[in-house]
Amino acid sequence: MPTPASSESIDPHSVGIVHTQIIRFESLTLDNGEVLLPLEIAYETYGTLNEKKDNAILVCHALSGDAHAAGYHEGEKRPGYWDYYIGPGKAFDTNQYFIISSNVIGGCKGSSGPLTINGKTGQPFQSSFPFVSIADMVSAQEKLVSHFGIEQLFAVAGGSMGGMQALQWSVAYPTRLKNCIIMASTSEHSAQQIAFNEVGRQAILADPHWNNGIYTNENKPSKGLALARMMGHITYLSDEMMREKFGRKPPKGNIQSTDFAVGSYLIYQGESFVDRFDANSYIYVTKALDHFSLGTGKELTKALSIVKCRFLVVAYTSDWLYPPYQSEEIVKSLEVNAIPVSFVELNNPAGHDSFLLQSEEQDSILRDFLSSSDEGETL
Amino acid sequence: MPTPASSESIDPHSVGIVHTQIIRFESLTLDNGEVLLPLEIAYETYGTLNEKKDNAILVCHALSGDAHAAGYHEGEKRPGYWDYYIGPGKAFDTNQYFIISSNVIGGCKGSSGPLTINGKTGQPFQSSFPFVSIADMVSAQEKLVSHFGIEQLFAVAGGSMGGMQALQWSVAYPTRLKNCIIMASTSEHSAQQIAFNEVGRQAILADPHWNNGIYTNENKPSKGLALARMMGHITYLSDEMMREKFGRKPPKGNIQSTDFAVGSYLIYQGESFVDRFDANSYIYVTKALDHFSLGTGKELTKALSIVKCRFLVVAYTSDWLYPPYQSEEIVKSLEVNAIPVSFVELNNPAGHDSFLLQSEEQDSILRDFLSSSDEGETL
Repeated sequence: MPTPASSESIDPHSVGIVHTQIIRFESLTLDNGEVLLPLEIAYETYGTLNEKKDNAILVCHALSGDAHAAGYHEGEKRPGYWDYYIGPGKAFDTNQYFIISSNVIGGCKGSSGPLTINGKTGQPFQSSFPFVSIADMVSAQEKLVSHFGIEQLFAVAGGSMGGMQALQWSVAYPTRLKNCIIMASTSEHSAQQIAFNEVGRQAILADPHWNNGIYTNENKPSKGLALARMMGHITYLSDEMMREKFGRKPPKGNIQSTDFAVGSYLIYQGESFVDRFDANSYIYVTKALDHFSLGTGKELTKALSIVKCRFLVVAYTSDWLYPPYQSEEIVKSLEVNAIPVSFVELNNPAGHDSFLLQSEEQDSILRDFLSSSDEGETL
Repeated sequence: MPTPASSESIDPHSVGIVHTQIIRFESLTLDNGEVLLPLEIAYETYGTLNEKKDNAILVCHALSGDAHAAGYHEGEKRPGYWDYYIGPGKAFDTNQYFIISSNVIGGCKGSSGPLTINGKTGQPFQSSFPFVSIADMVSAQEKLVSHFGIEQLFAVAGGSMGGMQALQWSVAYPTRLKNCIIMASTSEHSAQQIAFNEVGRQAILADPHWNNGIYTNENKPSKGLALARMMGHITYLSDEMMREKFGRKPPKGNIQSTDFAVGSYLIYQGESFVDRFDANSYIYVTKALDHFSLGTGKELTKALSIVKCRFLVVAYTSDWLYPPYQSEEIVKSLEVNAIPVSFVELNNPAGHDSFLLQSEEQDSILRDFLSSSDEGETL
């Protein structure tokens, strides 16, 4: 268990107290021709960039994540989302690697997005923020990486939406990364994945406070966003895990509007999400997910014909939102192109969220893949 | 394909034009002690009850179904929900059997439910209607069956919630049915099944027109109910079927708020549902589903130790909402009790809705099970 965040009690395998920083670039031209003026990126780094600048790993977060991947923010007890895997002696070993973690553009955790103030109006962009794609998120990350003077990343790694960004790196900047780690992800959303996101978006649009995306913090579409999160949350867990965790038990706490523990859990998850996420961002980021498409089959094989890095693809048997067959599609297309790829399907019962959770098996798979890089081996 | 509903053109395998009838009983005492005064049941019948009154089959509908299981309502082009299986020469052969189909209580299609006028107030009960269980739905059906003078039903059959009613018949009235057909169903909802229903209910509760269940037809929680239906609809289809039907295609029609065909389809499904279903009923009926529990394992085996009929249990590989393992639980418990049971898992790719769809394989399974009844054989 992580220790609480006071400078004295930080354990030796933690990166300790960390701060999110904001860097500003003049502009970013998006795929659709629109221009972000300026481009701001919120990021954290852990470990030290070596002299040759060849030890950097970029980690990419999922839908509701942010730049805070490891260590503790001052006064907070909960570490970054991938703290189990990032730190001294951990799989992403900060004694060895320089880890960069940035918030995606279109998000709401410090990088340019709907909450950014529009210089022309003095008001947040909200729904007037331009559409951003996964490719745009990656273009922004490339600026950050170049800012550090890094010509080639040792690796790009991520799960779910983070995996899509990693995959996009491999095709957008083939020579700029040596290793690519894609977990619980896909080369494009299926109709079912789009459908879940679509219902989430419709829940936000149905909220009377939505007002076409122009709302105040006091009068925002909280109920719609909470519903989107509740539904999303079901898809992140497995049937088996929900049974073990909740079964048919009665509700916890004083939530009156449900008869079941799984209900009070979801309601709590929905309500707490609206305090830390923005409804416009939810729409922008889920649209970026749904529109990302490198294809499948021959189309994907063609898209991946230009990649130059080694790949690790990890899928989870219990992940029904991003089922293993989607990972296998990526693996197949890489194999057709004779690209070195290791594929692992893990039996972790936790569903889609597995990639975020502590697992010794996952830990050693990541370690082995990274450490075998210099020998140019696959697992 | 079914022919349009004009008396001349009805095909010889259709039961033709049918009418929903309403029967009124003095009262029904519910499981929780509350009393429905009176009890009204909407029902249809197809075929003729024989003199011995031993050829009756009760078919039980699913969540959003109603008493209209076969044939055509005057002027309508769409037949009842199980028309492919009910009619002259069909699996539920109306030349041989007398089919009874009734709307569940708590529903909104003619049987006592939230839309029923409360005699004391002159207003619809709405959310003051008492909680009804699957057992209560079955108690009401028993009154209807007894009204026909039927001592023993030849069979009770249903899919999804209809399957739960069939299973409940076997334990509530063990001597009153000879055969029990349970399709795509379960002995109790899992946490995941409850979770999907819960988010649907929360979507209704979040609608500003919900008003604790007191609303007018002009000012009803349509957006909440539409969202519940949209989400439900995803769970009724399989990943594979959604891919084939929609893939990543752009939206159809003039629905502006989505970029994908699967989105416009779901929005349409949600919007059309609110014209034919009541939000209070959605809450009552999904609660009945979630609270139904004959247990699993030893608890279920004990519950089923008193049954006397033969069973046919049908599951669908692609049904991830009511996965085959839930059907297998029922089968296992019946087998431990040495109750005759046939179990079939069908490979139909359509997901949970498979039981509603035309399938020659399903047709012959139903025929064979029913025709082997008199020999006391299992399949």
